[in-house]
Amino acid sequence: MSDTEFRVTFTPSGRRGTAAAGVTVLDVARELGADIDSVCGGRGICGRCQVTVGSAPGKPDSPDALSAPGPTETDYRGKRPLVADRRLACAATICGDVVIDVPLDSQVHRQIVRKRAEVVAIDIDPVVKLHYIEVAEPTLEDAGSDLGRILAALESQWSLRGLAVDTALLAELQPALRRGSWDVTVAVHSENIVTGIWPGFRDQALGVAYDVGSTTIAAHLCDLASGDVLASAGVMNPQIRFGEDLMSRVSYVMMNPGGERQLTAVVREAMDDLIGELVEEAGVARDDILDVTVVGNPIMHHLVLGIDPTPLGTAPFALAVDEAVTASASQIGLEIHPGGYLYLLPCIAGHVGADAAAAVLSEGPHRGDVVQLLVDVGTNAEIVLGSAGRLLAASSPTGPAFEGAQISSGQRAAPGAIERVRIDRESLEPRYRVIGSDLWSDEAGFADSIKKTGVTGICGSGIIEAVAELYLAGVISRDGVIGGEHLRIIADGRTSSYVLDENASILVTQPDVRAIQLAKAALYAGVKLLMGYLGVDTVDEIRLAGAFGSHIDTKYATVLGLIPDCDLARVSSAGNAAGTGSMMALLSRSARTEIERVATEIEKIETATEAQFQELFVSAMAIPHATDEFPFLASEVALPPIQPPPLRTGGRTARRARTRGNAQ
Amino acid sequence: MSDTEFRVTFTPSGRRGTAAAGVTVLDVARELGADIDSVCGGRGICGRCQVTVGSAPGKPDSPDALSAPGPTETDYRGKRPLVADRRLACAATICGDVVIDVPLDSQVHRQIVRKRAEVVAIDIDPVVKLHYIEVAEPTLEDAGSDLGRILAALESQWSLRGLAVDTALLAELQPALRRGSWDVTVAVHSENIVTGIWPGFRDQALGVAYDVGSTTIAAHLCDLASGDVLASAGVMNPQIRFGEDLMSRVSYVMMNPGGERQLTAVVREAMDDLIGELVEEAGVARDDILDVTVVGNPIMHHLVLGIDPTPLGTAPFALAVDEAVTASASQIGLEIHPGGYLYLLPCIAGHVGADAAAAVLSEGPHRGDVVQLLVDVGTNAEIVLGSAGRLLAASSPTGPAFEGAQISSGQRAAPGAIERVRIDRESLEPRYRVIGSDLWSDEAGFADSIKKTGVTGICGSGIIEAVAELYLAGVISRDGVIGGEHLRIIADGRTSSYVLDENASILVTQPDVRAIQLAKAALYAGVKLLMGYLGVDTVDEIRLAGAFGSHIDTKYATVLGLIPDCDLARVSSAGNAAGTGSMMALLSRSARTEIERVATEIEKIETATEAQFQELFVSAMAIPHATDEFPFLASEVALPPIQPPPLRTGGRTARRARTRGNAQ
Repeated sequence: MSDTEFRVTFTPSGRRGTAAAGVTVLDVARELGADIDSVCGGRGICGRCQVTVGSAPGKPDSPDALSAPGPTETDYRGKRPLVADRRLACAATICGDVVIDVPLDSQVHRQIVRKRAEVVAIDIDPVVKLHYIEVAEPTLEDAGSDLGRILAALESQWSLRGLAVDTALLAELQPALRRGSWDVTVAVHSENIVTGIWPGFRDQALGVAYDVGSTTIAAHLCDLASGDVLASAGVMNPQIRFGEDLMSRVSYVMMNPGGERQLTAVVREAMDDLIGELVEEAGVARDDILDVTVVGNPIMHHLVLGIDPTPLGTAPFALAVDEAVTASASQIGLEIHPGGYLYLLPCIAGHVGADAAAAVLSEGPHRGDVVQLLVDVGTNAEIVLGSAGRLLAASSPTGPAFEGAQISSGQRAAPGAIERVRIDRESLEPRYRVIGSDLWSDEAGFADSIKKTGVTGICGSGIIEAVAELYLAGVISRDGVIGGEHLRIIADGRTSSYVLDENASILVTQPDVRAIQLAKAALYAGVKLLMGYLGVDTVDEIRLAGAFGSHIDTKYATVLGLIPDCDLARVSSAGNAAGTGSMMALLSRSARTEIERVATEIEKIETATEAQFQELFVSAMAIPHATDEFPFLASEVALPPIQPPPLRTGGRTARRARTRGNAQ
Repeated sequence: MSDTEFRVTFTPSGRRGTAAAGVTVLDVARELGADIDSVCGGRGICGRCQVTVGSAPGKPDSPDALSAPGPTETDYRGKRPLVADRRLACAATICGDVVIDVPLDSQVHRQIVRKRAEVVAIDIDPVVKLHYIEVAEPTLEDAGSDLGRILAALESQWSLRGLAVDTALLAELQPALRRGSWDVTVAVHSENIVTGIWPGFRDQALGVAYDVGSTTIAAHLCDLASGDVLASAGVMNPQIRFGEDLMSRVSYVMMNPGGERQLTAVVREAMDDLIGELVEEAGVARDDILDVTVVGNPIMHHLVLGIDPTPLGTAPFALAVDEAVTASASQIGLEIHPGGYLYLLPCIAGHVGADAAAAVLSEGPHRGDVVQLLVDVGTNAEIVLGSAGRLLAASSPTGPAFEGAQISSGQRAAPGAIERVRIDRESLEPRYRVIGSDLWSDEAGFADSIKKTGVTGICGSGIIEAVAELYLAGVISRDGVIGGEHLRIIADGRTSSYVLDENASILVTQPDVRAIQLAKAALYAGVKLLMGYLGVDTVDEIRLAGAFGSHIDTKYATVLGLIPDCDLARVSSAGNAAGTGSMMALLSRSARTEIERVATEIEKIETATEAQFQELFVSAMAIPHATDEFPFLASEVALPPIQPPPLRTGGRTARRARTRGNAQ
């Protein structure tokens, strides 16, 4: 090593090598592959490349190993304050052997940890990146095109080669260059196409992550570089006016040729309106948004793309496209930056959509060694099972009962809906909670707290708790029969019902219990089918995704046998896993690569063609029992004995109860 | 070689090799790289793969070398009649050693020869190709996406790998597959993206080649596979209402911020209207058009793309983009197939546009060994000089005089304009021809033949002939001074004018001659500048492109010294070379590659910065002379002596002539 070559080590990456005296830390880092962020390309503008002098193990600190701060640093008034002891890697040069510590906020591929329902770490590495460049001014001697000089600057200053440029952007090049006095910031998508240009230095690129559900559409506005969520907004899916649940919307299209165009138009309009809300809340402009990600179930996925979803309604349930789709955002009517792109995550199978793919990305069953069961329940339950070695996916036709549909007093989860239910094991008296109030129905002030909404019905989580509690209280047998004699149990001669709220006339009827049984049997059979394929008898952890997973008490889901027996401590809600996955794809290029690979690797099991599925389905109708296949559950919950409960006294006729209920 | 391997030779390609008995001729051709066309992929539908059994030199014909025609051939009722002795390469199989002749119309890369003003050979190899595929039907066991199964079919049946698909097309996949019972034809652009899909077999893909001139916009509708021109249409460039010539339109934009958007809107609308005319004339649909090419001068090029052209009006004349541009046709408002593309040829330099690039493609100076001078005269003259080894390009500021502007009686070439002029060498009496009539003005019936239009002015070619004839008749001196005494020469005390038509009051004034001298000096100086750079004293051939080149008599162009001395037999019009180049780019992928390469290789000379240019310009003001640098010219035309002509008698005053002219 010559006198003017020094040893340089970067932490935490561990990259090391030698560098000549006088070379900037940023240049050495690039040379050695150490990860230091920069937007301005080493011009002392953006302040993203801040580093500190670290300690080499067993060696004293060497404060003189870097050049003394020169004017760039002492006068620095850039975008990010220069914290004490920190140096600008683009200005400080090597003067001796040195260890350079790159703090988290100066790393390009830093992780952010998002605290929502649960902790998910996202590697920030956006598909759209900003690059500040100084473009050569044209002269009469060298009057190459503006585009050519921009591409040359990107190559020489950022090592970006062979870039294309969005046609919509061609008209912007000249004015930006001239207003910026030949210094501009450009946005580059996937390191292969220039999608935006602004005069001078620019540090902000935004993106929107959508989760297009059949009931609600949620959108988050994020800073692509920091991962910060600047604003969030949600809206009811306006397609609801064409049909409450998915299949009724597909029916609408079948009955009204061209109806898919209406469904497409309203969902796109709602998505665009959300952008308006987001930019207003964050005080930014639509043009600041450069990238958009979208997840949704297969039917939403198709409708957003303008594809007729009716083939998804009949066997063999073939998707038009299951591959990830990258397109111009304007193609689906989103008014963002003209060079803004849209990315739809891949679908996994005919009924396992981009929402499930996003949930996989978020929950990462493919990244772990334990057998994870990931379930997202809607009109169909999307089920993913497995671990790093092997992942399986299937969809079970649960129907809409879990969403409160096809239930006598059922309704969507909305203020006024009963969402929690407890039945006293002895008196069989109920108490409950209603969405919109924090009080239980037997607590003081409850009536006041629900004055606005009243008690309007029972939502998905409410009916599940009701049926599970009635089972635990012995009102419902393992086979799902409501029986016994009690003031709250009314009979019409053939079947009995349980009166949950006599004032609001809310009953749990025998058909209600049957609907829940059918739904839970479908889900459970799907899970068991995948467990059979995977060759496991138990699962190590269970993640319940989506609105259903957020609202349901996992204990009751286990009591009813929606999901297999598992240590309840390892059964949890995955929150809005699809939305989180959408955001991960927005913020991380490698997340896109990852889910595209995983989506093709997942083994798709079609429940409709599995003879075994019907068997599993029939045997899953019964409710789990203490002596049964549920050891974990039995250890935590007092399951009723096998024999049906003894008859109780105090029954009354259905006629009476109904009359009372209706009269109030 | 085993008993079941035979020798197969293809002519005219000369490809040879061995093939197993029973293999189809088409498969052998693909294996050996012999060029046989097919759209249906060997299914006996399209009839494009017809071949004949040829003769091997020194060997007898071997009629049994191919299998006897089976049902596919005997029952063939496909798209193209099966000519006598011809076989379908996809049906006939190898039974012995054989020579297979592939006729011209069965070759993929066949040439078509277009007979217009001159003969240009175009290799047909369109960027957009149709491929018929049989797609696997989805089943419950294998319900991959429609897109996935289409891409798999393209890979297995056409060896096309890794294709993308136009997002706009995603909604079309399912209906096309279902209507076509899983057999569809797809359009593939550049072998990398699927841009169209139709149920069943389809054989027609159309394209439009535009030539967007500042005065007129021309468009040709072509069959992309055969190269046939199905319809042609033209329209005045509606930008004319913003300014007759290019620079006045640029001025309009400078004076009216945002005016470029108006200019862009009207030119795009006119281009789209032309498509309406073309499809109506040819009886086809807009959706049948899959590809579009556009050429134009730099200002038209920028305006079509929506780019503000004003920077082109001032030094350093930098283009926003000079690279070839490929974009969705819908981005510039052309209503063709939703997956239709647009290709703009590259520009060469600030004032040497995509029209010049197209002319280069058409005239091919870079393909020959002789030094070719290619000139396209508009407001600027675009000049290309050189041969295969080295090409140079420059633009000379000729101004609009050659287009009839800035001439006292000048007008655009239109009915009523004088376009041909002869001056009797002795009597100095003129005769002329007018656009719209085939008769000379001294022929019987002339007055009747122009009754509709009258004589309205003099166009570019007319003023050039007038000045040249006046020079040859001795009325104008080498220095461009109108002199002498004659009834047709009138003087106002300072300068003289020649009366070309006393009734229509059409004069050739001294300023007119000066305007022509300035224009021709600019052009000639530009040519001489390039000749100096190339190190040649003479050029081998001269091609005059564009409307100017078509209308001008090359002899007069040489007499006036617009172009250097050259064997007049090798000076010719290139016709609408730009339009031909546009069509070549439409029909040939390799033509696009070729001109993109050549455009970057051409050396650009900026006349504005060349001190030498001013010198050349000044010395080019004089009109060529017999003792001068024009030996070829002097041998063919009787040039006047150096001395100015003797005074003639019979002059009259300008006042009288003007009064007469105005009175009628």
